[in-house]
Amino acid sequence: MRIGVDVGGMTTKAGCVDEYGKIHGKVSCQTNPKRHYEEVIKDMAFLVRSSVSESGLTMDDVESVGVGIPGIEDRSRGVVPFCTNLNWHEVPLRGILSGMLDKPVFVNNDATVAALAEHKVGASAGAASSVLVTLGTGVGGGVILDGKPFMGSHGVATEIGHMIIKFGGIECSCGNKGCWECYASARALMSFAREKAEMFPDCMIAREVSGRFEDITAKTVIDCAKASDPIAMRLFSDYVYYIDVGIVNLINTYDPDIILLGGGVSHAGKFLLDAVRERLPEMVFFKKMDYARIELATLGNDAGIIGASMLED
Amino acid sequence: MRIGVDVGGMTTKAGCVDEYGKIHGKVSCQTNPKRHYEEVIKDMAFLVRSSVSESGLTMDDVESVGVGIPGIEDRSRGVVPFCTNLNWHEVPLRGILSGMLDKPVFVNNDATVAALAEHKVGASAGAASSVLVTLGTGVGGGVILDGKPFMGSHGVATEIGHMIIKFGGIECSCGNKGCWECYASARALMSFAREKAEMFPDCMIAREVSGRFEDITAKTVIDCAKASDPIAMRLFSDYVYYIDVGIVNLINTYDPDIILLGGGVSHAGKFLLDAVRERLPEMVFFKKMDYARIELATLGNDAGIIGASMLED
Repeated sequence: MRIGVDVGGMTTKAGCVDEYGKIHGKVSCQTNPKRHYEEVIKDMAFLVRSSVSESGLTMDDVESVGVGIPGIEDRSRGVVPFCTNLNWHEVPLRGILSGMLDKPVFVNNDATVAALAEHKVGASAGAASSVLVTLGTGVGGGVILDGKPFMGSHGVATEIGHMIIKFGGIECSCGNKGCWECYASARALMSFAREKAEMFPDCMIAREVSGRFEDITAKTVIDCAKASDPIAMRLFSDYVYYIDVGIVNLINTYDPDIILLGGGVSHAGKFLLDAVRERLPEMVFFKKMDYARIELATLGNDAGIIGASMLED
Repeated sequence: MRIGVDVGGMTTKAGCVDEYGKIHGKVSCQTNPKRHYEEVIKDMAFLVRSSVSESGLTMDDVESVGVGIPGIEDRSRGVVPFCTNLNWHEVPLRGILSGMLDKPVFVNNDATVAALAEHKVGASAGAASSVLVTLGTGVGGGVILDGKPFMGSHGVATEIGHMIIKFGGIECSCGNKGCWECYASARALMSFAREKAEMFPDCMIAREVSGRFEDITAKTVIDCAKASDPIAMRLFSDYVYYIDVGIVNLINTYDPDIILLGGGVSHAGKFLLDAVRERLPEMVFFKKMDYARIELATLGNDAGIIGASMLED
């Protein structure tokens, strides 16, 4: 059995994943990243052991442990050079955890790991290559080429949320302007909607939150757009265009079999998917050739544990 | 010996390429693409035979023939679905040419072929992965991953000139707005310079062409920038920024070992290279990690023949 650990800024989860991608003995704890990293890693080891015993197994049944982190590993050194959400700097996660568990440990980025799960047992199973776009607070992504996580030469590939789609545009936390995530994230949609609600305080979006604009979320906009509110429909239509601009760039670079939409915004389901698909035919470069199918990710939050368990060297 | 054929809208060239990437018996003719495609392909076959005899060889010495075209091949069908510069539509180039020559024929995009040449015997030799960016009339590109041309799942990958870097920006011939080539091509720089010359008819750029603004080229701007003319320096600085925006996107997607600058604009040499390199450290996402080295392509126009000869299945 392979174990997957999904480390987030808030929660750390672990589970035993069988060959069909089913999770057994799912356990979790608060990450509490303000502690020393050794304490956080000790919790990971504890979760792994708990999950194994919850599943009625022993550590002898464990082949390997994979960890998805909100950052990247420098594979040549087996070190996490930095990880903003965990306040980590030069943490030798792989070595410490494999020392604690006496098992091979593999580490990769959380979005990459989720993409791997979808690719093996989720919405892109059977494809040769796929890209998972996570439309959440930010925009993240994982890229699978030839069935394997694509990491690039320095491990800095697939930062697709920081593709610049409008130079000189909205300021991004990364220091550049006009990154994809400044337009296509849930936070971006929320922020565009708050602006509009302030301009039109009688609009449906404003009414939905009883004038408490700080309560507006991406979901508020999408719900109002589904109810055919004109302002929300316009916001949603622009938002979908921003998603499509980035998707065109993904097609022009990776040209994958499938592009999956995941993350919180993807809970809008078919309403989002249909809209994203609609405009693409006129936007792709080769208008007479096939291009990537656009689909919804299907594994949701479990993708982190499942994909982590599938990591290997 | 392997033969490379480089088909352009104006000229078709061929040569025998030895194992060191050296061209022997280089021959060429006008492409004259207004003719029926069979005539154009007959000329290719003639050039191949001419090059072989010019090199003191016979067709028995020929292992394979590779062709670089200003378009793409649908590999599953062995057909060039369309090729604007040649007015081609559904041309079974591979089958016809291999029938004429009784040799295996391989076809790929001209920028991809040039990237392959640089990767094997040029500026990116020894790297695991590299991207060639051709800054010419348009912006093209070829991507080599794991030593092999990266074509994507539908053969439409690596249209990097049509990455959108400013949605809603300058209209592109592809139908979208704000493609990289609208800002980073020689034509773009020329067009920005003509605008400026019209605004400032006494500026150095305008004087260089004796007021004939239609004579302004990318080279005019670069020459004036080298001579420290303030308007040209500003144009050049903006232009380099546009190049860097696209390079950041290439790093955030492919994360290659090396990114090469080729095409006509790259004749500006070190002046261009230094400027492109200067701003990148503040623009890349992971500011403390290594990222792709930026270098000049070195094979120039020969890259087409050399890379075509290196094609294989």
